[in-house]
Amino acid sequence: MERVEQLTDRIIRRVNINLQEFAFDTGPYLRNIVPTNQLGRFYAFYGIWPHHPLYFHFSNSNLSGSYFLGKCEIYNSILYKSDIRGDELKQKGKTYHLGGFDVKAEEDEIIRIRDSFLIKTLVHSYSHDPEQTDLFLIKNTVSGPYANIHGSPVEGCFMGPFSTVDLTTLYDCIIGAYSYIQVGELSHRRIEAGQIWIRKEGVFDFRYQFPPDVLASRYIAFRPDKAPAGLFMDFAEDRKTDFQEIFDVVHLSQTIAVPKGASVNRYALVKGQSHVSENVLVAQRAFLEDAWLGKGANAQENCYISNSRLEGYDITAHGATIIYSNLGEKVFVGFNAFLQGRADALLTIGEESIVLPHTIIDIKAPLQIPPRRLVWGRIVDQKDLENHSISLEQLSDIRGELSWGNMRFNGNGLAFVEAFKHRIEHILTDNGAYFDGEKNIGHAQKGQNISFNIIQPYPNGELEGLYPTIDIRP
Amino acid sequence: MERVEQLTDRIIRRVNINLQEFAFDTGPYLRNIVPTNQLGRFYAFYGIWPHHPLYFHFSNSNLSGSYFLGKCEIYNSILYKSDIRGDELKQKGKTYHLGGFDVKAEEDEIIRIRDSFLIKTLVHSYSHDPEQTDLFLIKNTVSGPYANIHGSPVEGCFMGPFSTVDLTTLYDCIIGAYSYIQVGELSHRRIEAGQIWIRKEGVFDFRYQFPPDVLASRYIAFRPDKAPAGLFMDFAEDRKTDFQEIFDVVHLSQTIAVPKGASVNRYALVKGQSHVSENVLVAQRAFLEDAWLGKGANAQENCYISNSRLEGYDITAHGATIIYSNLGEKVFVGFNAFLQGRADALLTIGEESIVLPHTIIDIKAPLQIPPRRLVWGRIVDQKDLENHSISLEQLSDIRGELSWGNMRFNGNGLAFVEAFKHRIEHILTDNGAYFDGEKNIGHAQKGQNISFNIIQPYPNGELEGLYPTIDIRP
Repeated sequence: MERVEQLTDRIIRRVNINLQEFAFDTGPYLRNIVPTNQLGRFYAFYGIWPHHPLYFHFSNSNLSGSYFLGKCEIYNSILYKSDIRGDELKQKGKTYHLGGFDVKAEEDEIIRIRDSFLIKTLVHSYSHDPEQTDLFLIKNTVSGPYANIHGSPVEGCFMGPFSTVDLTTLYDCIIGAYSYIQVGELSHRRIEAGQIWIRKEGVFDFRYQFPPDVLASRYIAFRPDKAPAGLFMDFAEDRKTDFQEIFDVVHLSQTIAVPKGASVNRYALVKGQSHVSENVLVAQRAFLEDAWLGKGANAQENCYISNSRLEGYDITAHGATIIYSNLGEKVFVGFNAFLQGRADALLTIGEESIVLPHTIIDIKAPLQIPPRRLVWGRIVDQKDLENHSISLEQLSDIRGELSWGNMRFNGNGLAFVEAFKHRIEHILTDNGAYFDGEKNIGHAQKGQNISFNIIQPYPNGELEGLYPTIDIRP
Repeated sequence: MERVEQLTDRIIRRVNINLQEFAFDTGPYLRNIVPTNQLGRFYAFYGIWPHHPLYFHFSNSNLSGSYFLGKCEIYNSILYKSDIRGDELKQKGKTYHLGGFDVKAEEDEIIRIRDSFLIKTLVHSYSHDPEQTDLFLIKNTVSGPYANIHGSPVEGCFMGPFSTVDLTTLYDCIIGAYSYIQVGELSHRRIEAGQIWIRKEGVFDFRYQFPPDVLASRYIAFRPDKAPAGLFMDFAEDRKTDFQEIFDVVHLSQTIAVPKGASVNRYALVKGQSHVSENVLVAQRAFLEDAWLGKGANAQENCYISNSRLEGYDITAHGATIIYSNLGEKVFVGFNAFLQGRADALLTIGEESIVLPHTIIDIKAPLQIPPRRLVWGRIVDQKDLENHSISLEQLSDIRGELSWGNMRFNGNGLAFVEAFKHRIEHILTDNGAYFDGEKNIGHAQKGQNISFNIIQPYPNGELEGLYPTIDIRP
């Protein structure tokens, strides 16, 4: 594994240079997350389908477990069971509405990952930068397990486990564990763990800070020279064996009926008495167990839905967990939200409610969230709910500042609510929730028929663990 | 499957141009062998290991089921479950003894397959042409199921099912079903079905012609507008489901103990009480069932060994079948030989005997072949054995002509025997039969650790059934 070790060192050096102002050493975090020999054991795979101009290029990299759909170039990088989803890349000649402008793409957009180490990272490429339509760059970046890079290039960054950078271009930043950043652009900043920050410059600014001991003592702790630990890691770890079985076979038969307009990815795991309705999208590495999904609901990458019922048009975003919960129609559960109901403590969420990304609900008695409610922070009982939620109607009336425990809102409440509603509709449309048999085709329909190619690293010798250089075109 | 059909038409046209002097239309043979929709259903795979400079290039082709080890370029071709074994390609800077000359390879040798349709064809690349060390070309060629192209480029040819071209450069030829040709070079010739021809120009010439009705009525019939039929096809067909299971999983655990210096390929099938000894090589798509293999024995691609015991240093060549047989040490069973003993009719072959390629033994009572015997043709009983075999000692004394039923030998018997013995030693050495823990490393040792990559065609759309262009380098 000589060359893989050299590659790891190279990445650490490059990221450290970018983060030198923080005197931050990536090494002690990185080296304990993935034992080097693991990198030679797993294979990578990528999807082949006709919905994108095909182009992949891998060079001097380890790719174990990747999942690419659109154009992708990887150099000197390690992608350890990462999910790269280039299915929303901009295509040459088409016009896109970005940051208030109509922009025509001059070239096909490409995801380029260079000198980076992404560990179980979802990269979703729907970028919103009107200045750059042809390049989605991830450079000199290290990301911990289950982090998300969504709709935004990042350069010279360190992202802690279960952190999310959403529609935010990032330069030379450190993002703490379980932080969620959706602020447009950020550079040379260190964000502490458990910071939830949603900002539209000059319009609104929402911030919530998890008390550090709450996260580190129970959910996710991340310290140098130690692997990430806590309930979030354990939860994923406990379901690893189930996934192993579907990764071990080449062709997998569908285990449940998949109705018209719906798709269940071949690398999703479906257990127990699960049901999917029309136009449902179940993405790669989604986990369903005794889950009932109504029309147009989606279960995105790395989400877990267990013993739960989603009435329809619900969004379960990347990495979200929903256990013993019943959700009304059009409930949004954001990135890495963790909704832990129990058999004797059902969580009910009323229609059109918005569970913000990185919200933890961890209850021991039944809890009901009313319809059209915004929810954040950590909620363990009814009292917490009252302190960590607001009706969308009430929020829409706010202009100016609102402070509530660790939450601080500033700006136009209506704009904040509208922005979320707009995004929810956009996600439902893109995912094919409104497909009528002809029009409104989306990911659920396009994803019905994907071939997956499995590629492996050199099994031994100097190059052990590295993948050959592969160039793939139409 | 529009583009796959266009590709098939293109290949048929090109091959027909090469064969126009015979007024031979490839179409009616080709179109019935593989239903077009099958080409989109199977995946291809190729080995990654550190023993060769890696280079593969596929373009405008369907590759379903291929198996490449060394450098390979495929253009506008269909390789339907073919086995291409580039593990004996010449490497730049090394010196090779070819056709009596020591030749230094100026470039790495490459297998180039262009405008060809190979159906379950084994291509083994140990070429012997001293004039050309860097290119192994298969061009404008169609080959039927289980044909072998071994150690020789072919251009503008049609090869019938179960035919073999061995160490013979071929231009514009038609080779009939179950014919075996080892003659150095051949051009513009039509070889009828069931012709066995081994020639060293000016030294010896061995020919045997199967009576056509014997082959067509029981073993292999190949007629235009019909799929190949007969026992050979049925036998392979009956074992297809067993193989399907090992193709369906990504990683496969070894089901038997594999001792030091031995290797059992991950795509070999091992059933029942089978045993492999030290330095045994069991190649891809070999089939073992209640088979006992002594030290240094090898079971090559597409061979079947069932209810049999091979004492050691035995060679079971590509496509050979051995059923209810006991073989002494160093018995050679050539390409596509079919040895059909039965539970109550054991076949015994004495040590150092040579069963010529394309020999059929099909017995109903026990039969013993003495040691050091050359065997050919079709043998159903003791009387047949006497008319279709000769002791190596006796043959070594022959100078001039010997005629025996459908067999005719001319030339130096000793040279013929020596050539075979030399080749047998070469095969054993190359396959690692003589590995002592340090020296004499061969395929059995190198093949212990190969990664396999699985690649699939476009699942739908205009390009359905075609593979993307893939370029793979170190």
